[in-house]
Amino acid sequence: MSELSVDHLLGIKYITKDDINLIFETATQFKEVINRPIKKVPSLRDITIANLFFENSTRTRLSFELAEKRLSADVVNFSAASSSVKKGETLIDTVNNILSMKVDMVVMRHPNPGAGIFLSKHINASIVNAGDGAHEHPTQALLDCFSIKEKLGEVNGKNVLIVGDILHSRVALSNILALNLLGAKVKVCGPKTLIPKYIESLGVSVETDLRKALQWADVANMLRVQNERMDISYFPSTREYAQQFGINKSLIESLDKELVVMHPGPINRGVEMTSDVADSENAIILNQVENGVAIRMAVIYLLASKIKQ
Amino acid sequence: MSELSVDHLLGIKYITKDDINLIFETATQFKEVINRPIKKVPSLRDITIANLFFENSTRTRLSFELAEKRLSADVVNFSAASSSVKKGETLIDTVNNILSMKVDMVVMRHPNPGAGIFLSKHINASIVNAGDGAHEHPTQALLDCFSIKEKLGEVNGKNVLIVGDILHSRVALSNILALNLLGAKVKVCGPKTLIPKYIESLGVSVETDLRKALQWADVANMLRVQNERMDISYFPSTREYAQQFGINKSLIESLDKELVVMHPGPINRGVEMTSDVADSENAIILNQVENGVAIRMAVIYLLASKIKQ
Amino acid sequence: MSELSVDHLLGIKYITKDDINLIFETATQFKEVINRPIKKVPSLRDITIANLFFENSTRTRLSFELAEKRLSADVVNFSAASSSVKKGETLIDTVNNILSMKVDMVVMRHPNPGAGIFLSKHINASIVNAGDGAHEHPTQALLDCFSIKEKLGEVNGKNVLIVGDILHSRVALSNILALNLLGAKVKVCGPKTLIPKYIESLGVSVETDLRKALQWADVANMLRVQNERMDISYFPSTREYAQQFGINKSLIESLDKELVVMHPGPINRGVEMTSDVADSENAIILNQVENGVAIRMAVIYLLASKIKQ
Repeated sequence: MSELSVDHLLGIKYITKDDINLIFETATQFKEVINRPIKKVPSLRDITIANLFFENSTRTRLSFELAEKRLSADVVNFSAASSSVKKGETLIDTVNNILSMKVDMVVMRHPNPGAGIFLSKHINASIVNAGDGAHEHPTQALLDCFSIKEKLGEVNGKNVLIVGDILHSRVALSNILALNLLGAKVKVCGPKTLIPKYIESLGVSVETDLRKALQWADVANMLRVQNERMDISYFPSTREYAQQFGINKSLIESLDKELVVMHPGPINRGVEMTSDVADSENAIILNQVENGVAIRMAVIYLLASKIKQ
Repeated sequence: MSELSVDHLLGIKYITKDDINLIFETATQFKEVINRPIKKVPSLRDITIANLFFENSTRTRLSFELAEKRLSADVVNFSAASSSVKKGETLIDTVNNILSMKVDMVVMRHPNPGAGIFLSKHINASIVNAGDGAHEHPTQALLDCFSIKEKLGEVNGKNVLIVGDILHSRVALSNILALNLLGAKVKVCGPKTLIPKYIESLGVSVETDLRKALQWADVANMLRVQNERMDISYFPSTREYAQQFGINKSLIESLDKELVVMHPGPINRGVEMTSDVADSENAIILNQVENGVAIRMAVIYLLASKIKQ
Repeated sequence: MSELSVDHLLGIKYITKDDINLIFETATQFKEVINRPIKKVPSLRDITIANLFFENSTRTRLSFELAEKRLSADVVNFSAASSSVKKGETLIDTVNNILSMKVDMVVMRHPNPGAGIFLSKHINASIVNAGDGAHEHPTQALLDCFSIKEKLGEVNGKNVLIVGDILHSRVALSNILALNLLGAKVKVCGPKTLIPKYIESLGVSVETDLRKALQWADVANMLRVQNERMDISYFPSTREYAQQFGINKSLIESLDKELVVMHPGPINRGVEMTSDVADSENAIILNQVENGVAIRMAVIYLLASKIKQ
């Protein structure tokens, strides 16, 4: 197989295991590229990409922008803060306008779940979902699974624990779908009020005791605590959260086993994990960031190949 | 003729019919370029352009930025929100500072009418006016006339109706001047309080009944309603406006004639026009956007040719 | 000598006279480059630079960005306003994340004195300090001294007066250190409350009478008045300041001597100096801006040479 089964990357829900493997193979090659002195390839000199961020996200935007520039694509950035969206224009009109300027691909972050899917039915360009509300964040799940594979040799058969606010997390949902496709077993752990009822229907088990969950796990993916939500009644306080669902070095050592620690960033040091974990050999957090550029290069490159046909 | 009669594009007021024809011929060639797989030419590799936007305008800024990048110019963006303008610096000092960094051309949007003209007398660089208050927006008028010519074969002799707030519109004024130069007949229609007294001195007739005006017209250019102004006493409410000066499919069909519908964007669907018009064959709104990039490439290319002499 | 003694440019405090001379020689060559029709060199095609501005500074950011682009480096911009810094991430985590995306050099403006020095001990990339609180602004001092040398032939033995708020000025401190290294004599003049007690320990003399100070000076570097501080009790009013510490044409003429006038920008016309001075032959303010791009190209080029080894 040498091409994706889809014309857009809207969510892990819409792609296949073969798609993921093709993305991983391509990302492996691009990871070599970005570790060379000249970190660029001329592949997409004929492609113009618009990054449309209707929500702030410096880190994801930067990762996409670097991926695009290293493929030699032309890049324009568009952020909602200063846009005509404020002037009452519809999303379809905004995007159609940008496409009329001969843009080939749209990378979009949007607060509404399904914004990309809606858009893909009405416009004529390739769309990459860079996060749509609490729905999906597919490139994050791909880079997370790629990082697990890189560290442990394979994803198939591994025990992956996701810790935190599962209910509001697009990172959790996309990861669960990707891990399922790749044959990992998935467990979630977090405050009961933040674990959705439907989670078991996704083949995921629940464990509210963190120590027990970690005993089972090969990998612990520690979701970011959204401090801005911590004043809502069904959330614990940051301190309670850290005590029940945060990890520290002595907890990990007491498990007496190998454990890979992941985090999508930015870390709240002392909450999801203490610094002695974040900076330890267990953590592959910065590898995730590095792999993010390679994965995004692969996704963009493979979608662009379909445009050019 | 192979060069412009001016060193700046400050307004349609300052250019000739020959200038417009030269810009159109050049834009026609660039429109071919941006529809090729490789949408770039290396023409302006030696030109640095600063986009100075003292007012937000994502869509115009994006169109200029893409035009500049497709000419291979070096581009820097400067927006007032985070600029030293806030620190009390004069406009001339701000621009002279930027020019001292070896910038060759300045594309400027400014809230003050005549800001570009003032600047052109004090600085040593080519200036493109991207909108100065309620005064002029010359590239918009050029892309509008180019789009009419593309659709109807020529502008000369056509009946062009401009609908809306004529009083505060730089798009209206620049369009009237350009349409006059190219031999079109121009009529305006809108709330009486929003049509300036001097309009007839520009050779423009006034018709307050939209149906009658449309009966006369080959083209209807529907200006954007500035919602933010609708609470001012001499403005109608949005609903009243839509009833009296908005168009819908059944109104157009009742005319029993060809009508080209234009809009400078962003559209307020249901106000200036209903969706069945905006998305119909009558509308050339997205063509306007596409032509905008080609027209801006032409203007920048022709002004840069004069710098290089 | 053909390379810098340092891996970072954190402050003038950390570099030698030889470093400054090497930077000046290199900047002289780059100044020729940016005055050619093609203002670029392909030297840093393999270097990616992140501009991290945790404080707004359009003019410094623009100067660095143009310097980087003219060296053909890949550039990404990161501003604090929309960053994950707001989400509680530590500075080291933010920067390490960016570096994991294969960034080679960081140009940083930060409100905290010593932010760059702290960072340089924890990360693995070259850092250029673009201003850290009231501490240092080394590229400003380098471009100021380079401009003096260009105007007067040499810096050694010249009398340089710095006028204004010495206490809160990173420009003043970096200039004093650089002028000392290059053999100039330095005097400061300003409101007594704004001259720090330790200033004489830097080999600098104090003169509160502006006329006397100017009589002594070959060069007067007029610091910008921070209007936003003028409501604090130990500051004079703007008007009092202008009367006591501002210069005008008749004052300069009454001195009956050559005087070079400098200003780091943006100027408050009528405060630090009147327009007849700012726009006179005495002022080399726009030369400073032009030299700023050449100096920053030199600094970045020389630091990058060390990375590549």
